[in-house]
Amino acid sequence: MKIAILGFGTVGKGVYEIVKKANVQTQNLSVSHILVRKNKPRVLKEMTDSIDEIVNDQETDIVVEALGGIEPAHQYILKALEHGKHVITANKAVIAIYLKQFSDAANKHGVKFYFEASVGGGIPWIQGLEKALRIDTVNTISGIFNGTSNFILDQMSRNEESFDEVLAEAQKLGYAEADPSADIDGIDVANKLCISADIAYNINLQDRKKLPIFGIRNITLEDVDFFSQHGYAVKLIGRTHQADNKFDYVVEPTLFAHHSLEANTPDNYNLISLNGETIGKLDFFGQGAGMLPTANAVIQDILDIKEDKDHLKRNFDKKMIYSSEMTKADYLVRANADVGSLLKEYSPTKEGNYYLIHQIPVGKMHQIMQVILKDDDSAFMASLPQDKIKSSDSHLSKQEAVA
Amino acid sequence: MKIAILGFGTVGKGVYEIVKKANVQTQNLSVSHILVRKNKPRVLKEMTDSIDEIVNDQETDIVVEALGGIEPAHQYILKALEHGKHVITANKAVIAIYLKQFSDAANKHGVKFYFEASVGGGIPWIQGLEKALRIDTVNTISGIFNGTSNFILDQMSRNEESFDEVLAEAQKLGYAEADPSADIDGIDVANKLCISADIAYNINLQDRKKLPIFGIRNITLEDVDFFSQHGYAVKLIGRTHQADNKFDYVVEPTLFAHHSLEANTPDNYNLISLNGETIGKLDFFGQGAGMLPTANAVIQDILDIKEDKDHLKRNFDKKMIYSSEMTKADYLVRANADVGSLLKEYSPTKEGNYYLIHQIPVGKMHQIMQVILKDDDSAFMASLPQDKIKSSDSHLSKQEAVA
Repeated sequence: MKIAILGFGTVGKGVYEIVKKANVQTQNLSVSHILVRKNKPRVLKEMTDSIDEIVNDQETDIVVEALGGIEPAHQYILKALEHGKHVITANKAVIAIYLKQFSDAANKHGVKFYFEASVGGGIPWIQGLEKALRIDTVNTISGIFNGTSNFILDQMSRNEESFDEVLAEAQKLGYAEADPSADIDGIDVANKLCISADIAYNINLQDRKKLPIFGIRNITLEDVDFFSQHGYAVKLIGRTHQADNKFDYVVEPTLFAHHSLEANTPDNYNLISLNGETIGKLDFFGQGAGMLPTANAVIQDILDIKEDKDHLKRNFDKKMIYSSEMTKADYLVRANADVGSLLKEYSPTKEGNYYLIHQIPVGKMHQIMQVILKDDDSAFMASLPQDKIKSSDSHLSKQEAVA
Repeated sequence: MKIAILGFGTVGKGVYEIVKKANVQTQNLSVSHILVRKNKPRVLKEMTDSIDEIVNDQETDIVVEALGGIEPAHQYILKALEHGKHVITANKAVIAIYLKQFSDAANKHGVKFYFEASVGGGIPWIQGLEKALRIDTVNTISGIFNGTSNFILDQMSRNEESFDEVLAEAQKLGYAEADPSADIDGIDVANKLCISADIAYNINLQDRKKLPIFGIRNITLEDVDFFSQHGYAVKLIGRTHQADNKFDYVVEPTLFAHHSLEANTPDNYNLISLNGETIGKLDFFGQGAGMLPTANAVIQDILDIKEDKDHLKRNFDKKMIYSSEMTKADYLVRANADVGSLLKEYSPTKEGNYYLIHQIPVGKMHQIMQVILKDDDSAFMASLPQDKIKSSDSHLSKQEAVA
């Protein structure tokens, strides 16, 4: 089988290297083209700057899109599918928006569109989710979807370093990009959660403007220490539930007891869990990023196509309603302004700069946080784990009542 | 598809329940027979005590062997394969010995023999290993394969309870059996490592008498505390490497730094890692036992058969030599007897009752341990992580030299 690779960054290079070096050679795989930008030196004979040359090549069976970003990735993927090429991508940003469009185009043209590497990198998460769906209804998905933010939070707590120090280190190590906003503002998590929810619920979650997303940009070392003193580690979590044709969806910092799996997910690792109605909880853990784990996932998709192993078929056409009130949670909010009045319906208690808010609907809390940020743009919040917080066993026992 | 279940213990019941309750109903799966012992009350209409009735039933497509143990499981599996039934089992003890025989019989009769649930329970480990092997050579497999022993070690360290106390608790919770020797003496780990090595290296590792296996029966709370003071948690590990047509293989307690993934694998969870020549390290983590996760893995095999998804084909006919000298490691040995002389070639140093032994071949250490146990049947040992121990950064800095 002949493979064209669009883009020659981390993922593209990884795919190229594995095809060249590993046992896949014995499987008759080879790289026919590598799409690079016009002004790039063509150091390999496979390199070209013409997408048309690629999609019109009758011998090329599979196009691996490794450009990243929305455009031209979106147009190139569609073009490849329309020209009868199977397409594989690790590009979560473009799939989060166009999954249904790509899937419909692939069906129409009798080819495959696979994207295992887009969520969880080297973790076989998409496949694990699809396999669970073969036999069960998945009601909850929750986890640490972003390696960069996890690396930052882990280093802050382990080395007592500030957010800015660790971010600079992550950028030096290549874990974070020059513009880190997708990672630290929760956008990358939102994309991955969106793809997971689309598959789990068979929906097409395109309009994410209303969805509550809060990242870790404002976290301080003092926050991390305060949570730790109360027995918690903080992690950036994506979470969704469904029930009765409604679903919720949130990306936010969440606290986990020190001995929990989440609290012990180190470095740039990911931990994603699903809950099935009959089969219960399944955990998926591993390196969520990195050249070789991600490229390995792409190659696995290539081999599934070669061996004619179908992935789960979804139409993404079920209609479900997003509910901002479906889930209630306890939150810790740090703000310099007096926000007790904004939150007075939810029995706020206070310790130092931190308000503990009780059983507020998730959507409501995120709305109020937007108001708080207008007064104090350094404010931060984190939810407490939902089913574990009872006042009797809360580690937060020394709160003062807010008058 | 019609499924016969042999045995109605934890796994058999789990499979029955999922087929009855979950979406698999929509996949036209049903249970045709449940094999139970003659003297058992037949509370379900599917129950029978005749294996011949099952294998001779033309309508039954798949036999799920959930009896456990070697015989009659071995004979029943063969019989089912010979009668043209696909067979699925979670029974690691019988596969560890007869994998090649079963696989040959399945090939001869044109049916499938799948066993995802046998190693790692609900973790898709066999599949993960097989997928890695599609594209790469796997050189190392290492991990926590046994949930019961991990639960015991985790509880001892977390709650400062003795081995006997925790074992009794594990038995009460149903995590450990009345006779716990398979779990605590490393036999279960040895079986799972054997199956994994058979697949990874395409060998048929039947004669395990020479292989070094040391369990956790002798561990004390003092051992756990001593290791912890030096920065380590102890875990029961199975480990194998290959190079140049040789391989090694060991089951033994091993120390891991407190922040490592292994040290943070809690309760009855498993963590299994492989190292591929090109793709690097992949980790597989999750619940290694339990009714629903294990039954889910069995159902996934059933659906793979239904959807005609082939698993990796192996002949298990490669010849490789086991080498007891291939790997050297540092060990901590606790013994009341003076064992310094037995180990004097390996620069032993001593702290309290613990000898630190340097760079001894793994096979040699296990041989000497058998000699030590004759003098002190309460002696214990644990290896230190191989690539992490340099004398300069060892946490064991206060040893006295042994004269």
